[in-house]
Amino acid sequence: MPSSLALTLPAKGAPFTVTAIERRVPRDDDVRIDIRYCGICHTDLHFGHDDWGGTLFPLVPGHEITGVVAEVGAAVTSLAPGDRVGVGCMVGSCGKCGPCTAGEEQYCAEGFVKTYSARDRDGTVTQGGYSRSIVVPEHFVLRIPDELPLDRAAPLLCAGVTVHSPLRRWQAGPGSRVGVLGMGGLGHLGVRIAAVLGAEVTLLGSSPEKAEDAHRLGATRFADLRDRRQLAALRGHFDLLLNTVPAPLDMDLCLGLLGLGGTLVNVGAPSDPVASYNTFSLLDARRVITGSSIGSVRETRETLDFCAAHGIGAEIETIPASRVPHAWRTLAEARYRYVIDIATLTAP
Amino acid sequence: MPSSLALTLPAKGAPFTVTAIERRVPRDDDVRIDIRYCGICHTDLHFGHDDWGGTLFPLVPGHEITGVVAEVGAAVTSLAPGDRVGVGCMVGSCGKCGPCTAGEEQYCAEGFVKTYSARDRDGTVTQGGYSRSIVVPEHFVLRIPDELPLDRAAPLLCAGVTVHSPLRRWQAGPGSRVGVLGMGGLGHLGVRIAAVLGAEVTLLGSSPEKAEDAHRLGATRFADLRDRRQLAALRGHFDLLLNTVPAPLDMDLCLGLLGLGGTLVNVGAPSDPVASYNTFSLLDARRVITGSSIGSVRETRETLDFCAAHGIGAEIETIPASRVPHAWRTLAEARYRYVIDIATLTAP
Repeated sequence: MPSSLALTLPAKGAPFTVTAIERRVPRDDDVRIDIRYCGICHTDLHFGHDDWGGTLFPLVPGHEITGVVAEVGAAVTSLAPGDRVGVGCMVGSCGKCGPCTAGEEQYCAEGFVKTYSARDRDGTVTQGGYSRSIVVPEHFVLRIPDELPLDRAAPLLCAGVTVHSPLRRWQAGPGSRVGVLGMGGLGHLGVRIAAVLGAEVTLLGSSPEKAEDAHRLGATRFADLRDRRQLAALRGHFDLLLNTVPAPLDMDLCLGLLGLGGTLVNVGAPSDPVASYNTFSLLDARRVITGSSIGSVRETRETLDFCAAHGIGAEIETIPASRVPHAWRTLAEARYRYVIDIATLTAP
Repeated sequence: MPSSLALTLPAKGAPFTVTAIERRVPRDDDVRIDIRYCGICHTDLHFGHDDWGGTLFPLVPGHEITGVVAEVGAAVTSLAPGDRVGVGCMVGSCGKCGPCTAGEEQYCAEGFVKTYSARDRDGTVTQGGYSRSIVVPEHFVLRIPDELPLDRAAPLLCAGVTVHSPLRRWQAGPGSRVGVLGMGGLGHLGVRIAAVLGAEVTLLGSSPEKAEDAHRLGATRFADLRDRRQLAALRGHFDLLLNTVPAPLDMDLCLGLLGLGGTLVNVGAPSDPVASYNTFSLLDARRVITGSSIGSVRETRETLDFCAAHGIGAEIETIPASRVPHAWRTLAEARYRYVIDIATLTAP
C-alpha cells in the first residue's frame, strides 16, 4: 500500500505529529493527487478538538485541497497526470438517492463521505489534505481553471462554494442588499462574491479594523454588530443576510435587519448549534431562516469558474506545515485564510 | 354619531356585556356594513385575555366579518347598498410605504390598522365584528362571491387567507407533499385548500378523532404528532409544513420531516412565540423556517374567489351571541370554527 506523509492528530488532545499514512492504489475511477496546498478551515478545529463528538482518530484534517494529478485509474476520462485539480469536503456519496441523482451530493440521504474523519464506503477511514497525496474518485475531483493560482484557489473548495451557493440560490445581484455577518475565511469571500455579483454589500462584524479590507473587497458599508444604534439605522434594510459567524447571534436583532420577505442563511458549522427566535420576527415581514451546507460538485465547479472569470481568489497567509499548531491557536487572526504549503511537510 | 350594539369586554378580566358603541358617519371612501356573521378566531382570545399586553379596552373583538352593505360614501365606486361583503383583520394602512404600494398591506411599514384594539389613523380605537355594524374604508372591504354563504365565508377572511397565502407562495400543488400541523380553524382550511390545490396532504395532529374529518376534507394520511414511530416513518417526507399549532413544537422533530429544501411555515399567532432549533436541522437539507401573516387585500380576494370556485367554505358551528363566552371557553372543541349569528345580538 502506498504511503503519504501527513500531519496527524494521533488522539484527542494530542499534538500534531508527522506520520506516514496509507493511501490506496487508485481504483479504475480514482485520481491520485500530489497535494500542493491545503486551506485551514474552522471545521478542521471542530473535528480536531472533537467538539461535536465522533471524531475518528488518528485524524488528518484538511478539505481545501489543491494539487496536481499524479496518476489516474483506467476508467478516468476527464483528467490526466499534470492537470491542476482540487478536492473539497466530499470524496464520496451513495450516488443513488434523490439528492445524489439531482446532483446535490452534499445532501446525500446516506450522508456524503467527508474528506476526513469519515467511514468510506469500503470501510476505511478517510484522511484529509494536511498530507502529501490523496486518492479520490474522479467525480469529486475538480479541475482548477488556469487563471486561479493553486494557493488562493484552495479555500474556494470549501469556503468559496459555501458562500457562493446560497448567494446564487437566494439571488444576490444588482438591486439586492446583502449583509455578510462576520469576516473570516467564509465572510471575506462572501463580501467579495456578493459585490462581484452586483449586490450592495454591507459587512456586519465586530472587528472595525476589518472595515478597510471589507471596502477593498467590495463592501460599501461596515456596521458594528455590537452597536445597537448602527443596527437600528439598518432595520429592514437587507434582502439577504449571510451568517458566517460561528458564535451564537441575537437572532431577533438580525432578523429585524431584513426587509419584507428577507432571508437569513446560516452557513458554516456553528460551535453552539442551538438558536432561538421569536416567531413574530418571522411573521412580521414574512422573513426566512435557512441554512446551506457547502455545495454540490456542480456548484463547486461553478464557483471555481466564476472566481476564475472575475479574478477572485481567497486572501491568504501561506504557512509552512510546522506552523499549523500556531495557526490553529490564532485562527481568528488570519487575514483571511491560512493555507499550508504542503511542500514544507517533510519527514521529521 | 351613529351607534351599534356590540359584545364588549369592558376591561381585562371582566365578562362580556352588550353595549352601544359609536361608529363614525361614513366618509367619502367608507362603507357601512350591516354585519350578519362574525367568526371567532383564537387571536380574539389572545387580545381578550391581553396575552401579549397592550390590548385597548373596552374591546369588541372580531375580524372574520361578513354582512351586507348598508351605505357607501360619495367616492365609493366598487360597492353599493345590498352587496354581500366581508372584512378581515385590516381596516387601514399607510398606503404609501413599500409593502403598501406593492399591495402587501399586512406588512405596512407603519403597521396596518387592526380591525380591533388598534389606534386608527384618526386617533380613534377600532372595534371589531362582534357587533351589528361597522364602517370600513372601501379598500379593505371584500365582495363575497355569490356562491359562498355568508356564514361559511366569514372564517375565510382571516383563517382562510392565512393558510391560502403561504400554500400558494410555497407552491403547494400537484406533486408536492404538504403536512398540516394542527386541525382547528386554520388547519382544517389548510387541509382542504392544499388538497384542492392538488397536493398530497397529511394531517399531523394530536387528536386522532379528527382523522376522519381530515380524510373527508382531502387528507390522505393522519399522523399523531405524539407518536415518534409514526413520525420516524415520515422523516424527510414533506416539501411544506404548515404549522397552525399555537403551542410550542419540537422544531427539530418537525424540521426532520422535511425533505431537501423543504419549508416550515408558521401561521397564526403563537401563545409562546419563542422557538428554538438546532442549526444543523437547517444545514442538513437546506431547510427553511418562515412565517406568514394573514394576507393582503388582493390575496384575500384570491382566497374568496378560489374558495367560491371550488365550493370551499369553513366548517362551522353557528352560535348565538349569548353563547360567545361559552365558545371562548371551549374553542378547542369547535368543529372547526364558531361563527356568531349577529342577528341574535340584541339589547339586554
